[in-house]
Amino acid sequence: MQRTEISTYGEFGLIKHLTEKFKIENNSTLKGVGDDAAVLSYENRKVLVTTDLLLEGIHFDLVYVPLMHLGYKAAIVNFSDIYAMNGEPKQITVSIGVSKRFSVEDLDQFYAGIEMACKKYGVDLIGGDTSASLTGLAISITCIGEGEEGKIVYRNGARENDLICVTGDLGSAYMGLQLLEREKMVFSGNEEAQPDFEEKDYILQRQLKPEARKDIVELLREKGVLPTSMMDISDGLSSELMHICSQSNVGCRVYEDKIPINYQAVVMAEELNMNIVTAALNGGEDYELLFTASMVDYEKILTMEGVAIVGHITKPAHGLQLVGREGEEIELRAQGWNSLNE
Amino acid sequence: MQRTEISTYGEFGLIKHLTEKFKIENNSTLKGVGDDAAVLSYENRKVLVTTDLLLEGIHFDLVYVPLMHLGYKAAIVNFSDIYAMNGEPKQITVSIGVSKRFSVEDLDQFYAGIEMACKKYGVDLIGGDTSASLTGLAISITCIGEGEEGKIVYRNGARENDLICVTGDLGSAYMGLQLLEREKMVFSGNEEAQPDFEEKDYILQRQLKPEARKDIVELLREKGVLPTSMMDISDGLSSELMHICSQSNVGCRVYEDKIPINYQAVVMAEELNMNIVTAALNGGEDYELLFTASMVDYEKILTMEGVAIVGHITKPAHGLQLVGREGEEIELRAQGWNSLNE
Repeated sequence: MQRTEISTYGEFGLIKHLTEKFKIENNSTLKGVGDDAAVLSYENRKVLVTTDLLLEGIHFDLVYVPLMHLGYKAAIVNFSDIYAMNGEPKQITVSIGVSKRFSVEDLDQFYAGIEMACKKYGVDLIGGDTSASLTGLAISITCIGEGEEGKIVYRNGARENDLICVTGDLGSAYMGLQLLEREKMVFSGNEEAQPDFEEKDYILQRQLKPEARKDIVELLREKGVLPTSMMDISDGLSSELMHICSQSNVGCRVYEDKIPINYQAVVMAEELNMNIVTAALNGGEDYELLFTASMVDYEKILTMEGVAIVGHITKPAHGLQLVGREGEEIELRAQGWNSLNE
Repeated sequence: MQRTEISTYGEFGLIKHLTEKFKIENNSTLKGVGDDAAVLSYENRKVLVTTDLLLEGIHFDLVYVPLMHLGYKAAIVNFSDIYAMNGEPKQITVSIGVSKRFSVEDLDQFYAGIEMACKKYGVDLIGGDTSASLTGLAISITCIGEGEEGKIVYRNGARENDLICVTGDLGSAYMGLQLLEREKMVFSGNEEAQPDFEEKDYILQRQLKPEARKDIVELLREKGVLPTSMMDISDGLSSELMHICSQSNVGCRVYEDKIPINYQAVVMAEELNMNIVTAALNGGEDYELLFTASMVDYEKILTMEGVAIVGHITKPAHGLQLVGREGEEIELRAQGWNSLNE
């Protein structure tokens, strides 16, 4: 494969090379890449802003993450935050710091992933920064989106008796990561070993190429359901429930047997002798939505494909309770589950 | 000095600790830190967005840059980009990646600098991301500002015969950097040496604690001068002139003896046997404004303190010319000056 050193372009030449393929699609983007700042128009809409910093060795491992997937995922995780406000992502800025290890072709792959995500979700690339780095790859993305007055959903609106809902399934992205880590270890011990990914395509895809739940936000609008609170599940259901309960000043009751889990994730957990419920509660990186909705919307939510009701909101004094399969109650605590990550 | 390990806080505890001192001041900030995204309102204004990535070892050297100054400067350089659009900075997000070398007290210093800049320029901190880093400090800042319809100034509006103006003086920040680098080398060779900064306070301040030219943008408005093009001088006058000329499809003629240079910078250049004009043209980090204005505004500009007319815009065929002190013409070329940085 061809290798073009980044130094063959100047900073401005490189930015031009990387961004010239991107098309501006949104009316709210008046001016994108190429000036001191981008110019946007949000006259009848609220502006939503979210940002993420991703560092090599902390957030991703290029041994098993292809750069195109990394670009795609880096964009998606930001779109997901905008959907979690019941908004629509419209623009992103992408900044990267790259060491000499990376070639122009590597960056082309990364930006191809960004472009794919932008196209699929209707988002414009409007700026960024390109820099050298002493070690590895640093990525910083800021996403700007639009929200409608009165329709923006925060974390602090959950009320007693509200339904607690999650989309898709939980824990698969984490089990995909465990699989990749295992195969990396096998591979490092034996150069001839071939990774064993049979019947594990779903959990791998959940880890390497997640999607943001644009479809669910649209479905909620279509069905006329405005959640009382919402956030995306990036750090695990337990952690997100704690945010919603503490910001809304409520408690919750969640039923273990209602938590949606994919079959491949169950099999992987068994292989690795891990507890799949723990993974589903704390695994992170699922980028599903957690939302609460009024009991009034119960019938509507039942008809929504891809949405599971997993519990309900209680008085704050009841705390955060997980009800096990045998009816036993376990208090959800941050520290109780932290061991997973240690 | 006390040293609190960052690990004693969780990610959310750390964000809370670092951001709780910041107050929301702007009407356009509806919701700041604490949800999936911040929420802003820009109904009668355009939204300006700029972003910068700063990496330790590439953009700053903590041997001689105090963390509070670094925080201040990191914010200022982003505000400067918004002023360069004839806008007003209103919000920033601050993301940091930190290795174990840094303590909570270090981050407090950094955020104190950010807070000082935000207070002085009336900007709200609305979000960010906090992450571990394998090596050193990574900083990513996105700044959002407001622009008025029809008053936003781009790089592409310069027309033949327009005046070329620069604010403040050029080259001082670069000479300040050279001084710091020299003293660092002296110090590394002799642990008892004390840095010699006498009568160099101005160039040091220009390097360590630059300001954004809010005052000039306000003065232009007051005097009723709308520049035809504008950008901030972060990479050196030569480089910025090339951007304006290429985007406006014009040439320029700039007079060496009109370029404003501070006396301390001249002395420092002599001490180091460097050419001060080269430093003024290519040094970078001055964060002054370069703008073009119609000849009609000539008299008004003459009355503006802190603004120097350094040349005028020509037909594109004339290229980019620097007229030397003896009347000789030198073509401004990117590669012609690049040697400075090599």
